[in-house]
Amino acid sequence: MSLTARMDWTVPFHDLDPMEVCWHGNYVQYFEIVRTALLQRIDYDHPQMRASGYAWPVIELFIRYAQPLTYQQRLHLDARLVEWENRLKIAYEIRDATTQKRLTYGHTVQVAVDIQTREMCFACPDILREKLKSYL
Amino acid sequence: MSLTARMDWTVPFHDLDPMEVCWHGNYVQYFEIVRTALLQRIDYDHPQMRASGYAWPVIELFIRYAQPLTYQQRLHLDARLVEWENRLKIAYEIRDATTQKRLTYGHTVQVAVDIQTREMCFACPDILREKLKSYL
Amino acid sequence: MSLTARMDWTVPFHDLDPMEVCWHGNYVQYFEIVRTALLQRIDYDHPQMRASGYAWPVIELFIRYAQPLTYQQRLHLDARLVEWENRLKIAYEIRDATTQKRLTYGHTVQVAVDIQTREMCFACPDILREKLKSYL
Amino acid sequence: MSLTARMDWTVPFHDLDPMEVCWHGNYVQYFEIVRTALLQRIDYDHPQMRASGYAWPVIELFIRYAQPLTYQQRLHLDARLVEWENRLKIAYEIRDATTQKRLTYGHTVQVAVDIQTREMCFACPDILREKLKSYL
Repeated sequence: MSLTARMDWTVPFHDLDPMEVCWHGNYVQYFEIVRTALLQRIDYDHPQMRASGYAWPVIELFIRYAQPLTYQQRLHLDARLVEWENRLKIAYEIRDATTQKRLTYGHTVQVAVDIQTREMCFACPDILREKLKSYL
Repeated sequence: MSLTARMDWTVPFHDLDPMEVCWHGNYVQYFEIVRTALLQRIDYDHPQMRASGYAWPVIELFIRYAQPLTYQQRLHLDARLVEWENRLKIAYEIRDATTQKRLTYGHTVQVAVDIQTREMCFACPDILREKLKSYL
Repeated sequence: MSLTARMDWTVPFHDLDPMEVCWHGNYVQYFEIVRTALLQRIDYDHPQMRASGYAWPVIELFIRYAQPLTYQQRLHLDARLVEWENRLKIAYEIRDATTQKRLTYGHTVQVAVDIQTREMCFACPDILREKLKSYL
Repeated sequence: MSLTARMDWTVPFHDLDPMEVCWHGNYVQYFEIVRTALLQRIDYDHPQMRASGYAWPVIELFIRYAQPLTYQQRLHLDARLVEWENRLKIAYEIRDATTQKRLTYGHTVQVAVDIQTREMCFACPDILREKLKSYL
Protein backbone atom coordinates (compact mmCIF):
# COMPACT_ATOMS: atom_id res chain seq x y z
CA MET A 1 0.00 0.00 0.00
CA SER A 2 1.33 3.44 -0.72
CA LEU A 3 0.67 6.83 0.80
CA THR A 4 -0.42 9.40 -1.77
CA ALA A 5 -2.40 12.63 -1.93
CA ARG A 6 -3.92 14.76 -4.68
CA MET A 7 -4.99 18.40 -4.64
CA ASP A 8 -6.76 20.43 -7.31
CA TRP A 9 -5.10 23.73 -8.13
CA THR A 10 -5.67 26.64 -10.50
CA VAL A 11 -2.75 28.92 -11.44
CA PRO A 12 -3.43 32.45 -10.06
CA PHE A 13 -2.40 35.70 -11.75
CA HIS A 14 0.15 36.62 -9.09
CA ASP A 15 2.16 33.47 -9.81
CA LEU A 16 2.76 34.50 -13.45
CA ASP A 17 5.95 36.09 -14.73
CA PRO A 18 6.45 38.32 -17.79
CA MET A 19 6.58 35.22 -20.02
CA GLU A 20 2.97 34.66 -18.87
CA VAL A 21 3.78 31.32 -17.28
CA CYS A 22 4.05 30.36 -13.63
CA TRP A 23 7.40 31.65 -12.30
CA HIS A 24 9.54 28.59 -11.55
CA GLY A 25 10.02 29.45 -7.86
CA ASN A 26 6.29 29.34 -7.16
CA TYR A 27 6.13 25.59 -7.77
CA VAL A 28 7.67 25.09 -4.33
CA GLN A 29 4.40 26.36 -2.86
CA TYR A 30 2.43 23.91 -4.96
CA PHE A 31 4.59 21.03 -3.69
CA GLU A 32 4.00 22.21 -0.13
CA ILE A 33 0.22 22.38 -0.51
CA VAL A 34 0.01 18.74 -1.57
CA ARG A 35 2.69 17.64 0.93
CA THR A 36 0.48 19.11 3.65
CA ALA A 37 -2.45 17.06 2.33
CA LEU A 38 -0.30 13.91 2.37
CA LEU A 39 0.96 14.48 5.91
CA GLN A 40 -2.55 15.24 7.15
CA ARG A 41 -3.61 11.80 5.91
CA ILE A 42 -1.30 10.25 8.53
CA ASP A 43 -2.12 12.93 11.14
CA TYR A 44 1.48 14.18 11.14
CA ASP A 45 1.38 17.72 9.80
CA HIS A 46 3.16 20.71 11.41
CA PRO A 47 1.13 20.86 14.65
CA GLN A 48 1.58 17.11 15.26
CA MET A 49 5.28 17.29 14.30
CA ARG A 50 5.85 20.00 16.87
CA ALA A 51 3.84 18.15 19.52
CA SER A 52 6.04 15.09 18.90
CA GLY A 53 9.18 17.12 19.64
CA TYR A 54 10.54 17.20 16.10
CA ALA A 55 10.85 19.71 13.30
CA TRP A 56 11.26 18.33 9.79
CA PRO A 57 13.15 20.86 7.70
CA VAL A 58 13.45 20.32 3.97
CA ILE A 59 17.13 19.59 3.25
CA GLU A 60 16.85 18.89 -0.47
CA LEU A 61 14.62 20.06 -3.29
CA PHE A 62 14.59 18.96 -6.91
CA ILE A 63 12.23 20.14 -9.65
CA ARG A 64 12.12 19.19 -13.33
CA TYR A 65 10.01 21.58 -15.39
CA ALA A 66 8.76 19.71 -18.46
CA GLN A 67 6.02 22.06 -19.65
CA PRO A 68 5.02 25.56 -18.50
CA LEU A 69 1.94 26.20 -16.36
CA THR A 70 -0.37 28.87 -17.73
CA TYR A 71 -2.95 31.29 -16.32
CA GLN A 72 -5.99 29.61 -14.80
CA GLN A 73 -4.77 26.20 -15.91
CA ARG A 74 -6.49 23.49 -13.85
CA LEU A 75 -3.91 21.19 -12.32
CA HIS A 76 -3.65 18.05 -10.28
CA LEU A 77 -0.92 18.24 -7.66
CA ASP A 78 0.18 14.72 -6.66
CA ALA A 79 2.44 13.62 -3.80
CA ARG A 80 3.70 10.14 -2.94
CA LEU A 81 5.80 8.98 0.01
CA VAL A 82 8.94 7.23 -1.25
CA GLU A 83 11.32 7.00 1.77
CA TRP A 84 10.64 7.01 5.50
CA GLU A 85 13.42 5.00 7.19
CA ASN A 86 16.22 7.54 7.61
CA ARG A 87 14.69 10.51 5.95
CA LEU A 88 11.29 11.55 4.64
CA LYS A 89 11.35 11.69 0.86
CA ILE A 90 8.25 12.72 -1.05
CA ALA A 91 7.89 12.70 -4.84
CA TYR A 92 5.62 15.13 -6.68
CA GLU A 93 3.95 15.38 -10.05
CA ILE A 94 1.94 18.22 -11.50
CA ARG A 95 -0.51 17.20 -14.22
CA ASP A 96 -2.99 19.05 -16.38
CA ALA A 97 -6.35 18.21 -14.81
CA THR A 98 -8.03 17.72 -18.17
CA THR A 99 -5.44 15.86 -20.24
CA GLN A 100 -3.54 14.23 -17.33
CA LYS A 101 -0.32 15.15 -19.14
CA ARG A 102 2.57 15.38 -16.69
CA LEU A 103 3.95 18.92 -16.66
CA THR A 104 6.39 18.81 -13.74
CA TYR A 105 8.00 16.33 -11.40
CA GLY A 106 10.30 16.59 -8.44
CA HIS A 107 10.99 15.62 -4.85
CA THR A 108 11.81 16.93 -1.41
CA VAL A 109 13.83 15.33 1.36
CA GLN A 110 13.22 16.18 5.01
CA VAL A 111 15.01 15.02 8.14
CA ALA A 112 13.91 15.05 11.74
CA VAL A 113 15.52 17.59 14.05
CA ASP A 114 15.03 17.33 17.81
CA ILE A 115 13.43 20.65 18.80
CA GLN A 116 15.09 20.60 22.26
CA THR A 117 18.66 19.72 21.29
CA ARG A 118 18.48 21.10 17.72
CA GLU A 119 20.32 17.94 16.64
CA MET A 120 19.53 16.17 13.39
CA CYS A 121 18.32 12.56 13.72
CA PHE A 122 20.16 10.02 11.58
CA ALA A 123 17.10 7.80 11.44
CA CYS A 124 13.47 8.84 11.39
CA PRO A 125 12.07 8.79 14.95
CA ASP A 126 9.58 6.07 15.95
CA ILE A 127 6.66 8.48 15.82
CA LEU A 128 6.82 8.57 12.01
CA ARG A 129 6.67 4.77 11.76
CA GLU A 130 3.69 4.69 14.13
CA LYS A 131 1.85 7.29 12.07
CA LEU A 132 2.61 5.28 8.93
CA LYS A 133 1.79 1.84 10.30
CA SER A 134 -1.44 1.37 8.38
CA TYR A 135 0.41 2.12 5.13
CA LEU A 136 3.56 -0.04 5.53
CA MET B 1 13.37 65.78 14.97
CA SER B 2 11.80 63.04 12.95
CA LEU B 3 12.55 59.35 12.64
CA THR B 4 13.12 58.30 9.04
CA ALA B 5 14.93 55.57 7.10
CA ARG B 6 15.91 55.02 3.48
CA MET B 7 16.83 51.79 1.67
CA ASP B 8 18.06 51.28 -1.87
CA TRP B 9 16.17 48.67 -3.84
CA THR B 10 16.23 47.20 -7.34
CA VAL B 11 13.12 45.49 -8.74
CA PRO B 12 13.87 41.76 -9.26
CA PHE B 13 12.45 39.59 -12.06
CA HIS B 14 10.33 37.46 -9.74
CA ASP B 15 8.35 40.53 -8.62
CA LEU B 16 7.13 41.24 -12.16
CA ASP B 17 3.73 40.30 -13.52
CA PRO B 18 2.65 39.69 -17.13
CA MET B 19 2.30 43.46 -17.65
CA GLU B 20 6.08 43.57 -16.96
CA VAL B 21 5.66 45.77 -13.91
CA CYS B 22 5.99 44.95 -10.24
CA TRP B 23 2.87 43.08 -9.13
CA HIS B 24 0.99 45.37 -6.72
CA GLY B 25 1.07 42.90 -3.81
CA ASN B 26 4.86 42.81 -3.74
CA TYR B 27 5.08 46.42 -2.58
CA VAL B 28 4.11 45.22 0.90
CA GLN B 29 7.53 43.55 1.07
CA TYR B 30 9.24 46.78 0.07
CA PHE B 31 7.42 48.66 2.83
CA GLU B 32 8.53 46.00 5.30
CA ILE B 33 12.18 46.17 4.30
CA VAL B 34 12.36 49.90 5.01
CA ARG B 35 10.17 49.63 8.12
CA THR B 36 12.72 47.16 9.47
CA ALA B 37 15.48 49.70 8.80
CA LEU B 38 13.49 52.40 10.60
CA LEU B 39 12.79 50.21 13.65
CA GLN B 40 16.43 49.10 13.82
CA ARG B 41 17.41 52.76 14.15
CA ILE B 42 15.61 52.85 17.52
CA ASP B 43 16.72 49.33 18.44
CA TYR B 44 13.13 48.07 18.42
CA ASP B 45 12.88 45.53 15.63
CA HIS B 46 11.26 42.06 15.93
CA PRO B 47 13.77 40.53 18.39
CA GLN B 48 13.57 43.56 20.70
CA MET B 49 9.76 43.69 20.38
CA ARG B 50 9.50 40.10 21.47
CA ALA B 51 11.98 40.60 24.33
CA SER B 52 9.82 43.51 25.51
CA GLY B 53 6.78 41.24 25.73
CA TYR B 54 4.87 42.75 22.82
CA ALA B 55 4.02 41.78 19.27
CA TRP B 56 3.11 44.62 16.91
CA PRO B 57 0.82 43.25 14.21
CA VAL B 58 -0.07 45.43 11.25
CA ILE B 59 -3.78 46.28 11.56
CA GLU B 60 -4.08 48.62 8.58
CA LEU B 61 -2.36 48.96 5.22
CA PHE B 62 -2.87 51.59 2.56
CA ILE B 63 -1.02 51.89 -0.76
CA ARG B 64 -1.47 54.44 -3.55
CA TYR B 65 0.19 53.32 -6.79
CA ALA B 66 0.99 56.44 -8.82
CA GLN B 67 3.42 55.01 -11.37
CA PRO B 68 4.45 51.42 -12.13
CA LEU B 69 7.81 49.98 -11.04
CA THR B 70 9.77 48.33 -13.83
CA TYR B 71 12.44 45.63 -14.13
CA GLN B 72 15.75 46.54 -12.51
CA GLN B 73 14.51 50.05 -11.72
CA ARG B 74 16.62 51.57 -8.96
CA LEU B 75 14.43 52.81 -6.15
CA HIS B 76 14.62 54.65 -2.87
CA LEU B 77 12.33 53.19 -0.23
CA ASP B 78 11.56 55.80 2.42
CA ALA B 79 9.82 55.38 5.78
CA ARG B 80 8.87 58.00 8.34
CA LEU B 81 7.30 57.61 11.78
CA VAL B 82 4.07 59.63 11.98
CA GLU B 83 2.22 58.36 15.09
CA TRP B 84 3.49 56.67 18.25
CA GLU B 85 1.08 57.55 21.10
CA ASN B 86 -1.72 55.01 20.75
CA ARG B 87 -0.59 53.16 17.68
CA LEU B 88 2.51 53.00 15.52
CA LYS B 89 1.86 54.61 12.16
CA ILE B 90 4.56 54.68 9.52
CA ALA B 91 4.31 56.46 6.17
CA TYR B 92 6.16 55.24 3.09
CA GLU B 93 7.27 56.62 -0.24
CA ILE B 94 8.91 54.83 -3.14
CA ARG B 95 10.93 57.09 -5.43
CA ASP B 96 12.95 56.55 -8.57
CA ALA B 97 16.54 56.69 -7.33
CA THR B 98 17.69 58.73 -10.33
CA THR B 99 14.88 61.23 -10.86
CA GLN B 100 13.53 61.27 -7.28
CA LYS B 101 10.05 61.15 -8.77
CA ARG B 102 7.57 59.74 -6.27
CA LEU B 103 6.05 56.52 -7.64
CA THR B 104 4.12 55.18 -4.65
CA TYR B 105 3.02 56.25 -1.21
CA GLY B 106 1.21 54.55 1.63
CA HIS B 107 1.14 53.76 5.31
CA THR B 108 0.84 50.98 7.84
CA VAL B 109 -0.66 51.05 11.33
CA GLN B 110 0.51 48.66 14.04
CA VAL B 111 -0.73 48.17 17.57
CA ALA B 112 0.95 46.52 20.52
CA VAL B 113 -0.37 43.14 21.63
CA ASP B 114 0.72 41.66 24.96
CA ILE B 115 2.30 38.32 24.05
CA GLN B 116 1.22 36.71 27.36
CA THR B 117 -2.40 37.80 27.49
CA ARG B 118 -2.85 38.24 23.70
CA GLU B 119 -4.72 41.46 24.50
CA MET B 120 -4.38 44.55 22.37
CA CYS B 121 -3.00 47.66 24.11
CA PHE B 122 -5.06 50.81 23.68
CA ALA B 123 -1.98 52.98 24.12
CA CYS B 124 1.55 52.21 23.00
CA PRO B 125 3.51 50.68 25.91
CA ASP B 126 6.24 52.73 27.63
CA ILE B 127 8.99 50.76 25.95
CA LEU B 128 8.22 52.43 22.59
CA ARG B 129 8.48 55.93 24.11
CA GLU B 130 11.80 55.00 25.73
CA LYS B 131 13.18 53.73 22.46
CA LEU B 132 12.02 56.91 20.75
CA LYS B 133 13.20 59.36 23.39
CA SER B 134 16.10 60.80 21.41
CA TYR B 135 13.72 61.54 18.52
CA LEU B 136 10.77 63.14 20.36
CA MET C 1 -28.70 43.34 -8.36
CA SER C 2 -25.12 43.21 -7.19
CA LEU C 3 -22.06 41.46 -8.53
CA THR C 4 -20.36 39.30 -5.91
CA ALA C 5 -18.12 36.24 -5.72
CA ARG C 6 -17.01 33.85 -3.01
CA MET C 7 -14.01 31.49 -2.90
CA ASP C 8 -13.07 28.91 -0.29
CA TRP C 9 -9.51 29.15 0.96
CA THR C 10 -7.29 27.36 3.47
CA VAL C 11 -4.22 29.14 4.90
CA PRO C 12 -1.06 27.31 3.72
CA PHE C 13 2.15 26.93 5.74
CA HIS C 14 4.22 29.12 3.43
CA ASP C 15 1.95 32.12 4.16
CA LEU C 16 2.73 32.03 7.90
CA ASP C 17 5.20 34.29 9.65
CA PRO C 18 7.12 33.70 12.89
CA MET C 19 4.06 34.79 14.90
CA GLU C 20 2.36 31.73 13.31
CA VAL C 21 -0.25 33.85 11.58
CA CYS C 22 -0.66 34.74 7.93
CA TRP C 23 1.89 37.46 7.07
CA HIS C 24 -0.09 40.64 6.32
CA GLY C 25 1.29 41.04 2.79
CA ASN C 26 -0.08 37.68 1.67
CA TYR C 27 -3.69 38.87 1.98
CA VAL C 28 -3.20 40.75 -1.30
CA GLN C 29 -3.05 37.36 -3.02
CA TYR C 30 -6.27 36.29 -1.35
CA PHE C 31 -8.01 39.45 -2.58
CA GLU C 32 -6.73 38.73 -6.08
CA ILE C 33 -7.99 35.14 -6.11
CA VAL C 34 -11.56 36.23 -5.36
CA ARG C 35 -11.32 39.31 -7.62
CA THR C 36 -10.46 36.91 -10.44
CA ALA C 37 -13.57 34.87 -9.63
CA LEU C 38 -15.70 38.03 -9.66
CA LEU C 39 -14.31 39.25 -12.99
CA GLN C 40 -14.74 35.81 -14.54
CA ARG C 41 -18.46 36.02 -13.69
CA ILE C 42 -18.77 38.92 -16.15
CA ASP C 43 -16.31 37.36 -18.62
CA TYR C 44 -13.84 40.22 -18.12
CA ASP C 45 -10.73 38.70 -16.55
CA HIS C 46 -7.13 39.35 -17.72
CA PRO C 47 -7.38 37.67 -21.15
CA GLN C 48 -10.60 39.53 -21.99
CA MET C 49 -9.22 42.81 -20.62
CA ARG C 50 -6.22 42.54 -22.89
CA ALA C 51 -8.37 41.56 -25.88
CA SER C 52 -10.46 44.68 -25.25
CA GLY C 53 -7.35 46.87 -25.48
CA TYR C 54 -7.19 47.83 -21.81
CA ALA C 55 -5.07 46.99 -18.83
CA TRP C 56 -6.59 47.63 -15.41
CA PRO C 57 -3.79 48.26 -12.93
CA VAL C 58 -4.59 48.49 -9.23
CA ILE C 59 -4.01 52.11 -8.17
CA GLU C 60 -5.18 51.85 -4.57
CA LEU C 61 -5.22 49.12 -1.93
CA PHE C 62 -6.65 49.24 1.56
CA ILE C 63 -6.71 46.41 4.11
CA ARG C 64 -8.04 46.40 7.67
CA TYR C 65 -6.82 43.39 9.65
CA ALA C 66 -9.33 42.71 12.42
CA GLN C 67 -8.29 39.21 13.47
CA PRO C 68 -5.28 37.07 12.49
CA LEU C 69 -5.58 34.14 10.08
CA THR C 70 -4.10 30.89 11.38
CA TYR C 71 -2.63 27.71 9.88
CA GLN C 72 -5.13 25.64 7.91
CA GLN C 73 -7.96 27.96 8.89
CA ARG C 74 -10.89 27.53 6.46
CA LEU C 75 -11.90 30.89 5.06
CA HIS C 76 -14.49 32.44 2.81
CA LEU C 77 -13.04 35.10 0.54
CA ASP C 78 -15.78 37.50 -0.59
CA ALA C 79 -15.66 40.22 -3.25
CA ARG C 80 -18.31 42.74 -4.25
CA LEU C 81 -18.30 45.33 -7.03
CA VAL C 82 -18.92 48.80 -5.55
CA GLU C 83 -17.92 51.30 -8.31
CA TRP C 84 -17.76 50.96 -12.08
CA GLU C 85 -18.40 54.41 -13.61
CA ASN C 86 -15.00 56.10 -13.52
CA ARG C 87 -12.98 53.42 -11.81
CA LEU C 88 -13.40 49.80 -10.80
CA LYS C 89 -13.69 49.52 -7.05
CA ILE C 90 -14.06 46.13 -5.42
CA ALA C 91 -14.64 45.52 -1.70
CA TYR C 92 -13.41 42.38 0.05
CA GLU C 93 -14.16 40.49 3.24
CA ILE C 94 -12.43 37.46 4.66
CA ARG C 95 -14.56 35.38 7.00
CA ASP C 96 -14.00 32.23 9.02
CA ALA C 97 -15.82 29.54 7.02
CA THR C 98 -17.24 27.93 10.15
CA THR C 99 -18.25 30.86 12.34
CA GLN C 100 -18.76 33.45 9.54
CA LYS C 101 -16.93 35.94 11.76
CA ARG C 102 -15.42 38.73 9.66
CA LEU C 103 -11.63 38.71 10.06
CA THR C 104 -10.52 41.22 7.42
CA TYR C 105 -11.98 43.79 5.08
CA GLY C 106 -10.57 46.05 2.43
CA HIS C 107 -10.83 47.31 -1.11
CA THR C 108 -8.93 47.84 -4.34
CA VAL C 109 -9.37 50.50 -7.00
CA GLN C 110 -8.42 49.88 -10.62
CA VAL C 111 -8.46 52.21 -13.60
CA ALA C 112 -8.43 51.43 -17.29
CA VAL C 113 -5.23 52.15 -19.20
CA ASP C 114 -5.24 52.08 -23.00
CA ILE C 115 -2.63 49.44 -23.91
CA GLN C 116 -1.67 51.24 -27.15
CA THR C 117 -1.29 54.79 -25.87
CA ARG C 118 -0.49 53.85 -22.23
CA GLU C 119 -2.86 56.65 -21.19
CA MET C 120 -5.16 56.35 -18.23
CA CYS C 121 -8.90 56.59 -18.95
CA PHE C 122 -10.81 59.10 -16.81
CA ALA C 123 -13.99 57.09 -17.21
CA CYS C 124 -14.36 53.32 -17.47
CA PRO C 125 -14.53 52.31 -21.14
CA ASP C 126 -17.84 51.10 -22.59
CA ILE C 127 -16.67 47.49 -22.62
CA LEU C 128 -16.96 47.32 -18.82
CA ARG C 129 -20.57 48.57 -18.88
CA GLU C 130 -21.43 46.03 -21.56
CA LYS C 131 -19.95 43.22 -19.53
CA LEU C 132 -21.88 44.42 -16.48
CA LYS C 133 -25.19 45.02 -18.20
CA SER C 134 -27.03 42.07 -16.70
CA TYR C 135 -26.03 43.26 -13.22
CA LEU C 136 -26.83 47.00 -13.44
CA MET D 1 38.65 32.36 -16.79
CA SER D 2 35.31 31.77 -15.15
CA LEU D 3 32.14 33.81 -15.02
CA THR D 4 30.96 34.45 -11.46
CA ALA D 5 28.90 36.99 -9.54
CA ARG D 6 28.34 37.83 -5.90
CA MET D 7 25.49 39.74 -4.25
CA ASP D 8 25.08 40.81 -0.61
CA TRP D 9 21.77 39.88 0.92
CA THR D 10 20.03 40.22 4.29
CA VAL D 11 17.17 37.87 5.20
CA PRO D 12 13.93 39.91 5.52
CA PHE D 13 11.11 39.20 7.97
CA HIS D 14 8.62 38.21 5.28
CA ASP D 15 10.85 35.32 4.19
CA LEU D 16 10.69 33.65 7.63
CA ASP D 17 8.43 30.75 8.51
CA PRO D 18 7.08 29.71 11.92
CA MET D 19 10.39 27.94 12.68
CA GLU D 20 11.93 31.45 12.44
CA VAL D 21 14.15 30.48 9.51
CA CYS D 22 13.92 31.36 5.85
CA TRP D 23 11.17 29.25 4.27
CA HIS D 24 12.86 26.85 1.85
CA GLY D 25 10.93 28.05 -1.21
CA ASN D 26 12.24 31.61 -0.86
CA TYR D 27 15.79 30.54 -1.72
CA VAL D 28 14.71 30.36 -5.36
CA GLN D 29 14.42 34.16 -5.29
CA TYR D 30 17.90 34.47 -3.85
CA PHE D 31 19.28 32.30 -6.66
CA GLU D 32 17.51 34.48 -9.19
CA ILE D 33 18.88 37.72 -7.77
CA VAL D 34 22.48 36.56 -8.17
CA ARG D 35 21.77 34.86 -11.52
CA THR D 36 20.57 38.25 -12.77
CA ALA D 37 23.85 39.81 -11.61
CA LEU D 38 25.81 37.10 -13.42
CA LEU D 39 23.86 37.49 -16.67
CA GLN D 40 24.18 41.28 -16.52
CA ARG D 41 27.96 40.84 -16.45
CA ILE D 42 27.76 39.41 -20.00
CA ASP D 43 25.00 41.82 -21.05
CA TYR D 44 22.53 38.96 -21.53
CA ASP D 45 19.79 39.46 -18.97
CA HIS D 46 16.04 39.27 -19.72
CA PRO D 47 15.78 42.34 -21.99
CA GLN D 48 18.77 41.21 -24.08
CA MET D 49 17.49 37.62 -24.16
CA ARG D 50 14.17 38.79 -25.54
CA ALA D 51 15.84 41.11 -28.05
CA SER D 52 17.90 38.12 -29.25
CA GLY D 53 14.70 36.16 -29.98
CA TYR D 54 15.09 33.62 -27.18
CA ALA D 55 13.50 32.93 -23.84
CA TRP D 56 15.54 30.86 -21.39
CA PRO D 57 13.14 29.04 -19.07
CA VAL D 58 14.52 27.18 -16.07
CA ILE D 59 13.99 23.45 -16.71
CA GLU D 60 15.72 22.10 -13.62
CA LEU D 61 16.28 23.31 -10.07
CA PHE D 62 18.25 21.67 -7.30
CA ILE D 63 18.83 23.00 -3.79
CA ARG D 64 20.71 21.44 -0.88
CA TYR D 65 19.94 23.14 2.42
CA ALA D 66 22.89 22.58 4.76
CA GLN D 67 22.16 25.18 7.45
CA PRO D 68 19.13 27.41 8.05
CA LEU D 69 19.15 31.12 7.23
CA THR D 70 18.01 33.34 10.09
CA TYR D 71 16.45 36.80 10.48
CA GLN D 72 18.68 39.64 9.30
CA GLN D 73 21.56 37.23 8.65
CA ARG D 74 24.04 38.85 6.26
CA LEU D 75 24.70 36.55 3.33
CA HIS D 76 26.83 36.29 0.25
CA LEU D 77 24.93 34.93 -2.75
CA ASP D 78 27.37 33.43 -5.26
CA ALA D 79 26.72 32.24 -8.82
CA ARG D 80 29.08 30.55 -11.26
CA LEU D 81 28.52 29.51 -14.88
CA VAL D 82 29.24 25.78 -15.27
CA GLU D 83 27.72 24.78 -18.67
CA TRP D 84 26.96 26.82 -21.78
CA GLU D 85 27.21 24.47 -24.80
CA ASN D 86 23.80 22.81 -24.95
CA ARG D 87 22.19 24.31 -21.92
CA LEU D 88 22.92 27.09 -19.46
CA LYS D 89 23.80 25.64 -16.08
CA ILE D 90 24.57 27.91 -13.16
CA ALA D 91 25.77 26.77 -9.73
CA TYR D 92 24.96 28.70 -6.56
CA GLU D 93 26.27 28.96 -3.04
CA ILE D 94 24.89 30.92 -0.12
CA ARG D 95 27.46 31.80 2.55
CA ASP D 96 27.34 33.63 5.84
CA ALA D 97 28.92 36.99 5.04
CA THR D 98 30.89 37.07 8.28
CA THR D 99 32.13 33.50 8.69
CA GLN D 100 32.08 32.51 4.99
CA LYS D 101 30.54 29.20 6.07
CA ARG D 102 28.60 27.63 3.20
CA LEU D 103 24.92 27.32 4.16
CA THR D 104 23.31 26.26 0.88
CA TYR D 105 24.28 25.09 -2.59
CA GLY D 106 22.38 24.26 -5.71
CA HIS D 107 22.01 24.76 -9.42
CA THR D 108 19.61 25.70 -12.18
CA VAL D 109 19.51 24.56 -15.80
CA GLN D 110 18.02 26.73 -18.52
CA VAL D 111 17.49 26.04 -22.21
CA ALA D 112 16.91 28.41 -25.07
CA VAL D 113 13.42 28.52 -26.57
CA ASP D 114 12.80 30.34 -29.84
CA ILE D 115 10.20 32.99 -29.01
CA GLN D 116 8.67 32.83 -32.52
CA THR D 117 8.39 29.06 -32.96
CA ARG D 118 8.21 28.22 -29.22
CA GLU D 119 10.59 25.36 -30.00
CA MET D 120 13.36 24.34 -27.62
CA CYS D 121 16.91 24.60 -28.96
CA PHE D 122 19.04 21.49 -28.55
CA ALA D 123 22.20 23.58 -28.47
CA CYS D 124 22.66 27.06 -27.04
CA PRO D 125 22.28 29.65 -29.81
CA ASP D 126 25.36 31.53 -31.06
CA ILE D 127 24.34 34.69 -29.25
CA LEU D 128 25.23 33.11 -25.89
CA ARG D 129 28.75 32.17 -27.09
CA GLU D 130 29.27 35.69 -28.41
CA LYS D 131 28.22 37.20 -25.10
CA LEU D 132 30.57 34.81 -23.29
CA LYS D 133 33.56 35.18 -25.62
CA SER D 134 35.71 37.19 -23.22
CA TYR D 135 35.23 34.50 -20.56
CA LEU D 136 35.84 31.31 -22.58
